[in-house]
Parts: sequence; structure tokens; C-alpha cells
Amino acid sequence: MILGKVSGTVVSTISHPLYDHRRLLMCDLLDAGGADTGGYLICVDTVGAGPGETVLILDEGNGARQVLAWKDGPIRAVIVGIVDQLLIDEVVYDVTG
Amino acid sequence: MILGKVSGTVVSTISHPLYDHRRLLMCDLLDAGGADTGGYLICVDTVGAGPGETVLILDEGNGARQVLAWKDGPIRAVIVGIVDQLLIDEVVYDVTG
Amino acid sequence: MILGKVSGTVVSTISHPLYDHRRLLMCDLLDAGGADTGGYLICVDTVGAGPGETVLILDEGNGARQVLAWKDGPIRAVIVGIVDQLLIDEVVYDVTG
Amino acid sequence: MILGKVSGTVVSTISHPLYDHRRLLMCDLLDAGGADTGGYLICVDTVGAGPGETVLILDEGNGARQVLAWKDGPIRAVIVGIVDQLLIDEVVYDVTG
Amino acid sequence: MILGKVSGTVVSTISHPLYDHRRLLMCDLLDAGGADTGGYLICVDTVGAGPGETVLILDEGNGARQVLAWKDGPIRAVIVGIVDQLLIDEVVYDVTG
Repeated sequence: MILGKVSGTVVSTISHPLYDHRRLLMCDLLDAGGADTGGYLICVDTVGAGPGETVLILDEGNGARQVLAWKDGPIRAVIVGIVDQLLIDEVVYDVTG
Repeated sequence: MILGKVSGTVVSTISHPLYDHRRLLMCDLLDAGGADTGGYLICVDTVGAGPGETVLILDEGNGARQVLAWKDGPIRAVIVGIVDQLLIDEVVYDVTG
Repeated sequence: MILGKVSGTVVSTISHPLYDHRRLLMCDLLDAGGADTGGYLICVDTVGAGPGETVLILDEGNGARQVLAWKDGPIRAVIVGIVDQLLIDEVVYDVTG
Repeated sequence: MILGKVSGTVVSTISHPLYDHRRLLMCDLLDAGGADTGGYLICVDTVGAGPGETVLILDEGNGARQVLAWKDGPIRAVIVGIVDQLLIDEVVYDVTG
Repeated sequence: MILGKVSGTVVSTISHPLYDHRRLLMCDLLDAGGADTGGYLICVDTVGAGPGETVLILDEGNGARQVLAWKDGPIRAVIVGIVDQLLIDEVVYDVTG
């Protein structure tokens, strides 16, 4: 899994019916220290994450379908947690933004 | 999922029979702000996307086969939506090109 | 899928028996304009591609096994088409080499 | 598989129930000589690894679920071993940190 | 598949029981011309490869499990052949090291 920060939402009026009523969140990918890497992933949310929050992203299709209990879901990346703290080299980093 | 922009079509006279009558679209990959990254993917279309449109790309084989209801399809990347707007840091970006 | 150009052949006298009688082609990876990226993949051929030809590469294990009808094949990348033209921004690029 | 070094723990108070009681370790990715690459992965532990230890990381969802005997686990990366030594070009490198 | 060169062995005294009696080889990844890329993968061997040999690496979990006939194996990368020659642009490159 990797770290991301929710930056916004992707609006798509024409999309595959399997995406109806699914909110797609734009997430900037973070490095191990919580800094922006320049990369991003568009993720389906499972925990009610909102803009500015640091999140845990699972980027693997089979696991993503399982976490959503969505057997035939055309997805690859999901938000599986909201991250509060990173304990790195015995120092606590608060990342609740 | 990631963002792309349809730039053209790939013409292949000799290809595996499973690709007959499938249109292959060249998609430039975009960053989170909608700028060209220099990367690309050749995608199968599912939503009627055309040149210049910003699209949502799913790059995962099992999900791609499911979205196309194409159980044995030799594919990895599909266009699953046309993107109209990005709502980033509470600003609306129109990306209909 | 991505674009490649066949540059040669990989000769392996000692290999897993599942590879017997399979020709392994060295393919340089191309960017969206057909230029060499410096990357490569060693692919199993399915369409009779030869040196110098621009090809369509599928880099995904499950799809690769299906296109070869080779259920237990230890493969990841296959050549699934020979590319003749790229139609990019309404300009036709001949890539038959 | 690749090499990593455990640098800390990720604390997530809101996460998908499937993660309850699973410890998530932040692992810096190492190059073949044991030096930090700047990359990282958040991994589920299977061997009792602790901060500062060099570990063997498997980054593949289906294998990760199997090693944890966790059929529907929403995971991709697991720590599968603690690395003691690298024998490179006939030289022994102790990496027990 | 990609090219690698075996550079050494990874010693792990504490590892998941599924790895018992499996030799883990450190392989430097090579470019299409056989030069070191700086990357690496830790691979399970299937052909008796030794240090200094140029090898063919399959980096895909499902195929790796099949080539080893190891249905639940927690692996991703395997050595599936020893490479003797590369025939690139009609020139033969001997890569037996």
C-alpha cells in the first residue's frame, strides 16, 4: 500500500454504468515522509475520506474488488484507510492535515 | 485509474483475431492537473470517446475484461469514462478540451 | 497495450521446458510518436512479426496466456499485432519501418 | 521480491474492517547493495520484523494473500523474511543493521 | 520477460516457511544491450543459474507459480532461462559472461 492525499473529485458524465453512484477521488501520491511526489491515482473511496486527508491506498485490482465486495468491479485503486500518524525512526508525524 | 487524452488511432492490418472490430485508441497520459506527462497507453474504448477528449483509463487486465464483458480478452487498458471536470482544491477545472 | 519495435532474438539453450519451441523476440519500447524510449521487453510472438517491424505489445500475464491459448504459460508479454499506421492529431504516420 | 528496511508504523484510526488488528509497517526500499532508493511500500508483516531490520518484500497481491492465508485480503505487499546477509560477487555483506 | 545477471544470494534466517529450501538469487537487471540498469530483482531459480550468468526473468506472480508448479507460492519473479546470445540488428552478442 502507499500514501496519498485527497485533492479533489473527478466528474464524468459519460462513464461505464458500473461506475454509477461511485465517487472517484483524485489522490496525490505521497513519499514516506508525507511529501507530494508529483504522481497521483484516481481512487474509489471505502472509508468516507475527504479533501486534504492523508489516506492509505491499495493499488491492486483483485484486492480492490474484494475490499468493495464488488466481484466484477472495473477498478484498480481504492482508499482503504485514513492515516493519522506516521511513526518513523521513533518520531511521531501527525498527518491529519 | 488515471487520466488520459485521446490523441489518435492505431491501425494494425495483421493482428490477433481477438482484436477484430476493436478500435484501439492512442491515449496520452495526463498528470493530476491535466498536463501531458509524455507517457501513453493504447486502450480499447467502452464509452465512445473521440480525439481530444479527456478520459478515465483503467489499466488492469482483469477489470478491463470485466468492463467489456469479454472473459478471454487479451487486453489491459480500457477507457471507462469521459471526464468533464476536475474539482481540485475547491477549484473547478473544465477539461472537455 | 504499448508500441514496440522488434530488434532481435534471445537465444537460451537452457530454459524451462515450457519455453521449448517458443521464439523469444527482443522488442524495443516506443513512445507515442514511434521513437525509441530506451526500454525493452522480451515477448512471445503470436502474429509472425520480424525484425524492424512496429508491433503492438500486451504486457499482462493473464491476457497473454489467453491470447496464446496457453493456460499455464509462464509468460507476461506477447506481440498481438503488427502496426502499420498511427493516426495522431489527424496526421497519418507510416510506421512499417 | 525486493529489499526493504523497516522505518516505522502507519497509524490509521479509520480503516476498512479487514485491516483490524493488522500492523502496517512503513518500509524504505533498498537497492541491490542495501542503500536507500527513496521509494517505499507500506507492508503487512508475517515474520515479526521490527524497525531498522532489512526485510524481503513480496509486492504481488495474489501471492501476498496466499502467504497470509487470507483469501480475501485487500493487500498487495507483505514482509516475507528478515535478511541477514547479501552474498554479492563473492563478498558477504551483513545487513542486520 | 526481461534480462538479468545473477550477482549473488540473499540469506534470510527468519522467513516464511513457504520459502524453506528455496534459494533466492539477487539479479541485476540489464538493458536490451546487456548493460546494467541499476535495478534488481530477487528471484527464485528454476534452471540452475549461477553467479555471473545472464538470465531470462519472468516477473509476474501467476506465471511464476505455474512455472514452479507451486500453486500457493508467495513469489513474483523467477529465473526461467540462461541466455547465451542476443541477436540484435543481425549482430550476435555473446552474453555467457
